[in-house]
Amino acid sequence: MSLHVTKGHGTRNDFVLVDDRAAALALDADLVRALADRHGGLGGDGVIRLVPSDALPEGHDTLASDPAARWFMDYRNGDGSVAQMCGNGVRVFAAFVEELGLHDFAAGPLAVGTRAGVKHVVKEPQGWFAVDMGVGRVVGGETALRDGADASVVVPGLDGPARPGLSVDMGNPHTVVALASADELEAADLAHAPAVTPVPPEGTNVELVVPLGEQRTPDGLVGHVRMRVHERGVGETQSCGTGACAAALAVRAWAGPGAPDVWLVDVPGGQVRVRMLDGGRVELAGPARLVAEADVDLAALRPDV
Amino acid sequence: MSLHVTKGHGTRNDFVLVDDRAAALALDADLVRALADRHGGLGGDGVIRLVPSDALPEGHDTLASDPAARWFMDYRNGDGSVAQMCGNGVRVFAAFVEELGLHDFAAGPLAVGTRAGVKHVVKEPQGWFAVDMGVGRVVGGETALRDGADASVVVPGLDGPARPGLSVDMGNPHTVVALASADELEAADLAHAPAVTPVPPEGTNVELVVPLGEQRTPDGLVGHVRMRVHERGVGETQSCGTGACAAALAVRAWAGPGAPDVWLVDVPGGQVRVRMLDGGRVELAGPARLVAEADVDLAALRPDV
Repeated sequence: MSLHVTKGHGTRNDFVLVDDRAAALALDADLVRALADRHGGLGGDGVIRLVPSDALPEGHDTLASDPAARWFMDYRNGDGSVAQMCGNGVRVFAAFVEELGLHDFAAGPLAVGTRAGVKHVVKEPQGWFAVDMGVGRVVGGETALRDGADASVVVPGLDGPARPGLSVDMGNPHTVVALASADELEAADLAHAPAVTPVPPEGTNVELVVPLGEQRTPDGLVGHVRMRVHERGVGETQSCGTGACAAALAVRAWAGPGAPDVWLVDVPGGQVRVRMLDGGRVELAGPARLVAEADVDLAALRPDV
Repeated sequence: MSLHVTKGHGTRNDFVLVDDRAAALALDADLVRALADRHGGLGGDGVIRLVPSDALPEGHDTLASDPAARWFMDYRNGDGSVAQMCGNGVRVFAAFVEELGLHDFAAGPLAVGTRAGVKHVVKEPQGWFAVDMGVGRVVGGETALRDGADASVVVPGLDGPARPGLSVDMGNPHTVVALASADELEAADLAHAPAVTPVPPEGTNVELVVPLGEQRTPDGLVGHVRMRVHERGVGETQSCGTGACAAALAVRAWAGPGAPDVWLVDVPGGQVRVRMLDGGRVELAGPARLVAEADVDLAALRPDV
């Protein structure tokens, strides 16, 4: 028995996508792990199942919130656990929906059901997808900003004293640390987790950033920042959507009044764009690429004997 | 434009396989890297192209050596470089040839052209493939065996003095180190290369082994050993074919007269079997599994912009 899937990625955050329009697939944790297994399976950071919102218990909230959100992004981490949302994954999901002919972006945004609520995805002229990631905020508010920091971070591989870090909440926790140069960013050893003080109760993602300046464009002032990220419980990754948003929020807060509302963020896996919206909301835009269609032999996925 | 490929693995050493019977594919280093890329492509330790032996300059030696070796295993490392042979890869190649209907193993062994000469692959009743890996030898000969070692190895993560290591030549260099227990094997930190003294001129693969005893079977005495491997220039891998052969050779040499000629070797990615043949030759047997067929969109493989 074989399963037809698609492999795609957004700034090298990669996924196995399954078209389950019929809501017929029993996607248990074992199957997710086997598909996401980079050596024994097809490989991916996670597995994304497209399923009708009305086929899932959590999809009823989706449809109550926006009846247009017909398709649900059932996102699973590579370890088989259920996840709420993924900023890079939702763009790849949008490309997948388009590829399947289920939505015409020329007619308007795509409403996507997720466990973190309905997300509206826009396709931009250059082919990027943009999504409203919700409200982001500097946790310590004015107090933290006056000091420029509310945490102290020891970064493995970097000499010198602990670095100041700024806590940012993007629905998940982030600590952003500004480094002095691209050389320092390169020298950081993110094979090990940076030590953050005070220790956040549920851990934190750590973004190391180097501001690269600002540029005046026809659309206004655009900031530019380079970052690397250590995701809690995972390690260094090629890209982290909420991490890019947190990095832009922190650098903008440090820059003070008159700072750009739009930031290009270079992550190891490519480039994304973060834009400040009204009401403290944050938009993330970036590429999404579908690279292969595959038929996976489910019997061959069994562990070696 | 899309390229049809197959994904397969042997004890989790995994490959992208391409059927190029027509010798029509320009498989350059860029394409190899893009296909083997685990985030941006399909992902694999290497890429294996099936091509007629008479279509390659190096295939002329193949056909002179064995006219039955019609198909050549054009093996490339994931970094795009050309490689000679791969003990796990040749089994997966054999399964691929069978899947394509190009050889019937019931009629006899498959002769495979490789850059390390013609390899003859047998399919066993349980579905494993066995291949003659050529001559293996303890480099230091009787002198090294009298001392039990000819090298000294510091293993990261393990306390205590440097461990004795035995140099084994399987066409490529290996240093085998016996540890005291499975706990020690677990504790070794192979994220870093063990330090071998004297430093081998071209580096060495290091196998850490724990003998697990011997068992009398209807087919004779069978030894059992568990190993982890650090491949030179690569790091820790899930499996290494020549490394399993080297581990069995060393443990058998240490055991002395009466030691088994057949060894089951547990690697992180599964189990293989090593058998001593006449003339110092060594046979490696193990599973091969084809897990997916895929159509890769070559345009989508381009780096993110």
